[in-house]
Amino acid sequence: MVKVVKIGGNVIDNEAALARFATDFAKIEGPKILVHGGGKLATRLAEKLEIPTTMIDGRRVTDAQTLDVVTMVYAGLVNKHIVALLQAAGCNAIGLSGADANVVKATRRAANPIDFGFVGDISVEGVDADFILSLTERGVVPVFCSIMHDGAGTLLNCNADSVASAVAVGVAQKQETELVFCFEKPGVMVDIDNPDSVIAEIRPQSYQQLLADGVVNKGMIPKIDGAFKALNSGVKVVTIKHSEALNLQSGTKIVL
Amino acid sequence: MVKVVKIGGNVIDNEAALARFATDFAKIEGPKILVHGGGKLATRLAEKLEIPTTMIDGRRVTDAQTLDVVTMVYAGLVNKHIVALLQAAGCNAIGLSGADANVVKATRRAANPIDFGFVGDISVEGVDADFILSLTERGVVPVFCSIMHDGAGTLLNCNADSVASAVAVGVAQKQETELVFCFEKPGVMVDIDNPDSVIAEIRPQSYQQLLADGVVNKGMIPKIDGAFKALNSGVKVVTIKHSEALNLQSGTKIVL
Repeated sequence: MVKVVKIGGNVIDNEAALARFATDFAKIEGPKILVHGGGKLATRLAEKLEIPTTMIDGRRVTDAQTLDVVTMVYAGLVNKHIVALLQAAGCNAIGLSGADANVVKATRRAANPIDFGFVGDISVEGVDADFILSLTERGVVPVFCSIMHDGAGTLLNCNADSVASAVAVGVAQKQETELVFCFEKPGVMVDIDNPDSVIAEIRPQSYQQLLADGVVNKGMIPKIDGAFKALNSGVKVVTIKHSEALNLQSGTKIVL
Repeated sequence: MVKVVKIGGNVIDNEAALARFATDFAKIEGPKILVHGGGKLATRLAEKLEIPTTMIDGRRVTDAQTLDVVTMVYAGLVNKHIVALLQAAGCNAIGLSGADANVVKATRRAANPIDFGFVGDISVEGVDADFILSLTERGVVPVFCSIMHDGAGTLLNCNADSVASAVAVGVAQKQETELVFCFEKPGVMVDIDNPDSVIAEIRPQSYQQLLADGVVNKGMIPKIDGAFKALNSGVKVVTIKHSEALNLQSGTKIVL
C-alpha cells in the first residue's frame, strides 16, 4: 500500500510540530509520498516586500509577483527545509514541484469568469505515476510542494489538497493507495469543541446524513467531497487526522 | 560522454540570455547535467528585506537569514524557473538541491579562522553518482542549484563552480564525463579586450607559462586550477566558453 500524506500550513508554521511530524513520517514503513501546504510564510514575505494582495470572493489572486513569492517559499524554503529534516531523520526524501521531471502538469484556470492569475488545476492525466513509483521503488520519498507547471514554461500555484488527491489517484491506478490528510484537529468531529466526538468512519450514506443534520461544517465539506472523489477514482481509503497522530489508529476514515 | 554544464549568474539575471541558453542546452544530445549559479536576485531580495550583508575578506557571510534568502532564490525561484523553461524546450529537467535524495552532501566549513556561517564544501565522496546516473539513464536531466545539506538537517550555501566540479568528478568515476563552464566571455583570453585572442587549449605546461607571463588573470586562476583538479580526478576535458556558444566548437579546452 502506497501512503500519500498531506500536511497543512499550520504544521509548517510551527517548527516543533514540523520536526515531530518529520520524525513520525520517517517511521512509516513501505512506499510513501508527502505533499505539503505553504503556511503563512508566503503571506508574511509578500507583506514585507509590500506586494499588494488582491482578493476576489475571499480567494487570493496569484499575480506574477505573488507567483515568485510562493515559488520561493513553497518550492524553495519550505520544501528544502522539510527534505533536509526528513534526510536527518533517515528518510531519503526528494523535493519536487510539478515541473521537476514533468511529474505533475497543471492547466491554468480560465480567466473567465474570474481571473485568479497564475493558478492551476490538476487532473489525474497530468500525474506521471510511473516516475513517482520509480522513485519509491528505489526507496526515495517524493515530497511535493503545490507549485506545478503548464509544460509551456509557466509555473502555476495550485491547491495542496488537490495536489495530494491527484497524486494519490494517479498512483492508485498502478498500486493500492491510501491518502491521509493531516491537520490541527483529531478528525471530523460531531462537536468541534469536543475532541472525543471524532467520527471514526464516514461512508457515502452516513455522509448524506451528516450533511442533512448540519454536523459537517462548511470548511470540511470540500475536503470530504474531495475524499469521495479520490475513493471513486481508485484510492482505497482516505483518513483525516491530527498531524501528531500520524502513526496512531485515530482520526476519521472515509471509505466507500 | 556525460556533459556537465555550469552557467553563471550573469546568464540567470538576463531573461533573454537564459531563454536562449535553455533552448541550446535542450538540444545537447546524450546524458547531461546542469549546475546553475544564483545571480543578483538573492542580493536584491536581501536588500529589499533589509537583511544586513556581512563581508569578511571580500566574501559574504551566510547567516541564518541569508541562508533562507539563498534557499528561496536559488533552490526555489531560479531552479524552478530554469526547470520550467527546459521542460518547455522539450528537456525533461528535474531540479535538485543537495538534500534531495541526499544527492550531494556537503561539510559545513570550519568556523576557524573565519566563520562564514552556513557555507559548505563538497568532496566527491558526498556525491551520489549512482542516483544521478539513474536519472540520466531514464532521460531525466538533473538541474542543480548550489544549496546542499549536511545530512543532519541543515542546508548549506555552496560555490556553484565547486558543485559542478564535484558532480562531474563523481559521475566521471562511473562514465566518461566532460565539464563545461559557460560564462559571459568567449573563453580564456590573452587580451581581455580582444575576443579573438581566445586560447584554444591549455595543458599543464602551457598553463605554467601563462601564469609566469601573467596572461591568466586573477579571477581565472581558481577556475583553471579547479579544472585541472577535475581532470586529475577523472574528468576527460574541461571547456570554458561563452554561454551563447554552448553548442559551437569554441572556447578554451583544458586537458592533461
